[in-house]
Amino acid sequence: MDHKTYAVIGTGAIGGYYGARLHHGGYDVHFLLNRDYQFVSEHGLKVESHYGDYSIPADTIKAYNTSHTMPKADVVIVALKTTQNHQLEELIRPLLKPDTLVLLLQNGIGAEQTLTNQLALDYTAGGLCFICSNKVGPGHIHHLDYGRLTLGVYGESGMPALTSVADDFQCCGVEVDVESSILDARWKKLLWNVPYNGLSAVLDTDTAQIMACSETVALVKAIMQEVCIAAEAMGSSLDPSLIDTMLNNTAKMKPYLTSMLLDRRNSREMELQYMYKNVLEMAAEQGVDMPKTEALYHQLCFINRLTAD
Amino acid sequence: MDHKTYAVIGTGAIGGYYGARLHHGGYDVHFLLNRDYQFVSEHGLKVESHYGDYSIPADTIKAYNTSHTMPKADVVIVALKTTQNHQLEELIRPLLKPDTLVLLLQNGIGAEQTLTNQLALDYTAGGLCFICSNKVGPGHIHHLDYGRLTLGVYGESGMPALTSVADDFQCCGVEVDVESSILDARWKKLLWNVPYNGLSAVLDTDTAQIMACSETVALVKAIMQEVCIAAEAMGSSLDPSLIDTMLNNTAKMKPYLTSMLLDRRNSREMELQYMYKNVLEMAAEQGVDMPKTEALYHQLCFINRLTAD
Repeated sequence: MDHKTYAVIGTGAIGGYYGARLHHGGYDVHFLLNRDYQFVSEHGLKVESHYGDYSIPADTIKAYNTSHTMPKADVVIVALKTTQNHQLEELIRPLLKPDTLVLLLQNGIGAEQTLTNQLALDYTAGGLCFICSNKVGPGHIHHLDYGRLTLGVYGESGMPALTSVADDFQCCGVEVDVESSILDARWKKLLWNVPYNGLSAVLDTDTAQIMACSETVALVKAIMQEVCIAAEAMGSSLDPSLIDTMLNNTAKMKPYLTSMLLDRRNSREMELQYMYKNVLEMAAEQGVDMPKTEALYHQLCFINRLTAD
Repeated sequence: MDHKTYAVIGTGAIGGYYGARLHHGGYDVHFLLNRDYQFVSEHGLKVESHYGDYSIPADTIKAYNTSHTMPKADVVIVALKTTQNHQLEELIRPLLKPDTLVLLLQNGIGAEQTLTNQLALDYTAGGLCFICSNKVGPGHIHHLDYGRLTLGVYGESGMPALTSVADDFQCCGVEVDVESSILDARWKKLLWNVPYNGLSAVLDTDTAQIMACSETVALVKAIMQEVCIAAEAMGSSLDPSLIDTMLNNTAKMKPYLTSMLLDRRNSREMELQYMYKNVLEMAAEQGVDMPKTEALYHQLCFINRLTAD
């Protein structure tokens, strides 16, 4: 048994689920909370899971409302929404030892780069979560299905540290793929997220309705082609046949409400910077124009402002 | 006093208003109606106008529910929404004499060309209505303000006929500008309509909200630039300074609900073919790409399908 210390920044649907899995596997896990701190300190953390329910009682859970009182960690798992990333540098700095691995379980692209620079780290890591999990109340996670992680390093020298973390997750029953570059994995996920998240939010609709209209299918495809060209320019080649594969798979899926649509419907801020703004800026720096993606981004900004008002 | 016979195809907010003006001025005006035929035959036509109310009583109005029983006309004024244009050839043919002028008071572009070909005419004419007018009930028009017409010919030889019609309108108190080409005038109006109608409908918002968000202002401007390039390629040069003028004027306007937004909110079919599809096809034939306009069109198609379901 490894004795790494884990810090979980953001104990919601993602951080609560994976943190509880690690805790269940015997690891030393410290949870940072914000709004839910008082409740979780008094009532603990409860995960109702597809794979079996699990609770960490109040007298056992290591819950914090500031990272300044947390012990330094071997691994910092960041599971905040990217809309909170302006806080990350300050939240993480007190937790760092010379060899701490920071692992970002977030959507979009660009966060590893920013954080690696801000904290002057040699490397960080990122992860994509293929999971259906919701926070249904304070300290109460409902895990519906799946849970596989795709992890990858950002920076040259981080692979041994990440491989060790991947082993920990696997010991705790979490399926893990380790990719050589988190950026390739992030671009592949953006290929789906950029068109479907944005269009579903702007049109207030699910994936099945989008796929039932030939014009929106054409628009999804055109946006995917823009993402492919941008990824290529950034050095992450995506197989162009992925576009048709994703379109076909999405057409066969049950109607799916994207996270951005749910954010819109619940008047929560949408994750536009890491899923759109960074993508457009990276493309522009390479001289790549993404007009349909940009049009969608501008519409989403409009909706986000209404929400923020 | 000229004794031209006028046929009005579509007696709604536009046809009802201008037809009543011509009738009030002493012209022989014949009104084609559809849903409202029975009501108007029994109760007449009532226009409550900014410039004074005017009614045509039931025992005076010449109302029809088919153009086959109407007399042939010197001028056919088409005031249907363009979503009904598939009916035009059949509706107009019975009204034609060798020198009949067909005048299309409609939005968008491409209708004069189609109709001139279908009816094998030497020329037609088109008009843009700068008016606030609504049909508030059967045979009941509420004219709030304005009413100026910009008219122009389509085809080489129609100017004398159009000038005579313009004189008739002016005799009846309608302000008229006559342009040498209706296409130039239509492109200029499209410069405003393409961004604002579509974006207001997709985002379900008014012009003031669009102008209050820097990202949607940038998107409006980008779409206007695409329209400018398309117009130029089609031989209708627009002064590029028009873009900033229109943006500034729109920012100063009271919050305005576009006709397309009202169509969406009232679950009526939106006028996509003549305001978007024709524009995109004309541009494509000239090798001009309009990606942001196309993205907007595809979103509008999605909304129109929901409405049509």
